[in-house]
Amino acid sequence: MKQEQSVGVVEKHTFTFATEEPMHLESGASLGPVTIAYETYGRLNAERTNAILIVHALSGSAHAAGYHRADDAKPGWWDECIGPGKAFDTDRFYVICSNVLGSCYGSTGPSSVNPATGKPYGLSFPVVTIGDMVQAQVKLLDHLGIDQLLCVAGGSMGGMQVLEWAANHPTRLKSAIPLATTAHHSPMLIAFSEVGRQAIYADPAWANGDYYELGKKPDAGLAVARMVGHITYLSEESMQKKFGRRLRSLEQYGYEFETEFEIESYLKYNGNSFTRRFDANSYLYITKAMDYFDLSRHTGSMAAAFANAESVKFLVVSFTSDWLYPSYHSKEVVSALTAVGADVSYLDIQSTWGHDAFLLEVETMTALLGSFLDRLAHEEGVTFPPVEGEDRGEDRPASAPERVMV
Amino acid sequence: MKQEQSVGVVEKHTFTFATEEPMHLESGASLGPVTIAYETYGRLNAERTNAILIVHALSGSAHAAGYHRADDAKPGWWDECIGPGKAFDTDRFYVICSNVLGSCYGSTGPSSVNPATGKPYGLSFPVVTIGDMVQAQVKLLDHLGIDQLLCVAGGSMGGMQVLEWAANHPTRLKSAIPLATTAHHSPMLIAFSEVGRQAIYADPAWANGDYYELGKKPDAGLAVARMVGHITYLSEESMQKKFGRRLRSLEQYGYEFETEFEIESYLKYNGNSFTRRFDANSYLYITKAMDYFDLSRHTGSMAAAFANAESVKFLVVSFTSDWLYPSYHSKEVVSALTAVGADVSYLDIQSTWGHDAFLLEVETMTALLGSFLDRLAHEEGVTFPPVEGEDRGEDRPASAPERVMV
Repeated sequence: MKQEQSVGVVEKHTFTFATEEPMHLESGASLGPVTIAYETYGRLNAERTNAILIVHALSGSAHAAGYHRADDAKPGWWDECIGPGKAFDTDRFYVICSNVLGSCYGSTGPSSVNPATGKPYGLSFPVVTIGDMVQAQVKLLDHLGIDQLLCVAGGSMGGMQVLEWAANHPTRLKSAIPLATTAHHSPMLIAFSEVGRQAIYADPAWANGDYYELGKKPDAGLAVARMVGHITYLSEESMQKKFGRRLRSLEQYGYEFETEFEIESYLKYNGNSFTRRFDANSYLYITKAMDYFDLSRHTGSMAAAFANAESVKFLVVSFTSDWLYPSYHSKEVVSALTAVGADVSYLDIQSTWGHDAFLLEVETMTALLGSFLDRLAHEEGVTFPPVEGEDRGEDRPASAPERVMV
Repeated sequence: MKQEQSVGVVEKHTFTFATEEPMHLESGASLGPVTIAYETYGRLNAERTNAILIVHALSGSAHAAGYHRADDAKPGWWDECIGPGKAFDTDRFYVICSNVLGSCYGSTGPSSVNPATGKPYGLSFPVVTIGDMVQAQVKLLDHLGIDQLLCVAGGSMGGMQVLEWAANHPTRLKSAIPLATTAHHSPMLIAFSEVGRQAIYADPAWANGDYYELGKKPDAGLAVARMVGHITYLSEESMQKKFGRRLRSLEQYGYEFETEFEIESYLKYNGNSFTRRFDANSYLYITKAMDYFDLSRHTGSMAAAFANAESVKFLVVSFTSDWLYPSYHSKEVVSALTAVGADVSYLDIQSTWGHDAFLLEVETMTALLGSFLDRLAHEEGVTFPPVEGEDRGEDRPASAPERVMV
């Protein structure tokens, strides 16, 4: 555990709802009880106005920052941006991250036991949507006694949840930061999702989703799905920089089918290690939720979807080398938000890192998000909780912006 | 069969060499005997100077134009560009197309029977390279009595063979047309290849390559590999135009895992139909040959690789929306060719069709290639064979350029 600027050792909590009345899903199906795993970092101020919800991407979890045990080798998935003095400054803000509905990190999903049968749901789990994921997050906020978030932020599928929050629960948030995302999954994104799903279906160990009690999981198929994903998270340029045509160990071509190129080794390693941490059925359900995501589906236009979001302040961010969610997707969002008169800042950040940039451009993100949140807290008169160790008897007031806007 | 402008019913020929002395491969391994399947369209002139070699991409065959039987529903793979009055005008030129070494359309490959064992080679087939494919084509030309080609042309992996021809057999050709290609497979290309291979390896029916006599082929894995490939042949824009987010039949989402979006249906159809026409092991061998392709590997620089190609006339073509072989790959080739003083024309064609553009932009290609070949034939004083039905007793002289250069 690296102590410096870390939130330290954190704990995963769970919250269960829909125990009596089931949760009504967008599909018309019902689900209950529903458990949501979540973590929190920092402290809520007395007015309960400094809460920020972090929403994660396809394979993320509630463990966004800190360490579960002091000897953990790796911190949470967005630790570089969440902690004391970081982009989401836990000295000032109360940061919440929950695992999405349908995932496999403590929230109810296809690998959960269906109380009606005593067996894992498998494919009997209902198809969930981005809207359903957000609905579960709303329940969590109710449970935590937070009426209004200062901000909801996330990249990729996280960004879709951010847009869903702003469109359908605008009174529950002051600001929204959708990063490297889209308001509707493009056919190319659907195509990549579908190839991943087909790789899982093609694995005989998938057993139509009922593999949990068979002693064998569809690891081969899931690994291929993840490898496809990994290619789309990088850019041609970042692959060129990171791997080029370098061979793993040989000086000369081996003229056989072993893993030879470094890029092959990288993909294989990431594909295989993913199978040790993720559930194949969750991969199916979550990619399906992304494919279904189309913010203007019920309203006809994106601007109409944002009709009630004019009071939400937006920071929209895209990255120049992200070919999975190209900048023009974000520009469409900005255009729709501008049409309804929302307060929008938009940045198309120069980066060679492709879609992964939202996780890798830490310095830029720290300056940019920090500055946006500073200004917001100042404008909204948000008080910060007392600094630990200090005993000033009152909350600190929000300071004027300190960081430089990029 | 559509008669108009067609070469009509054509026949597949085979040529077998290395029957006594084996063929020496770039890897150091030997192979023999080697059979190459080929087709020819049009007629060779008296001076044997009007021959054009067409080289195909990953899944192509010798059947580039015309029909094998009058009731064939589909013509050869590049029929739109090969025929009377087409880009490769068979009234004027003698067009040859052969199936690459390692493929499964009549040339020796992993599905061929190893005469030493009486069983299909499977993975005992040696790894072949683009250089080996071209070496086999050289043998075919020797067999056909053609000392020098007027042109060698092809796209994608075909373009790699074109570059290999120009770099290593420059005296055997007057001109070269590499389309939508690269002089060295990038890490992103290797990554996509490797994912396809991993999908095949992951299929238990692959049986380490020895599936030919088991009654079951690794169709599921090969279909996934092909689906990945298909995504890379399109562009985001062409997918948007062609499929958008349209559903196949439902008005509403089905909230299940059946094929729902048109893009899913397209991929699945193409993936599955590919398994009926292509061999999974050939997919492994040919993608490996592409991954190994690096024209400057033995020379240190691309210009050094082209050191003896200054007498070859080049028409290099890329397409603006091709993200698999982006234009800058072609520009690198042009730069290296310019450095050695070769005669190079380069066009980066505006197209929304992605990598597939080289097959789809027929009108542009017809004007462009036709004009280039007209000029070339004129400059080289190439005579055209007598028009069938006419009996002028002598070959027609090449005319001055007639077509408009794009």
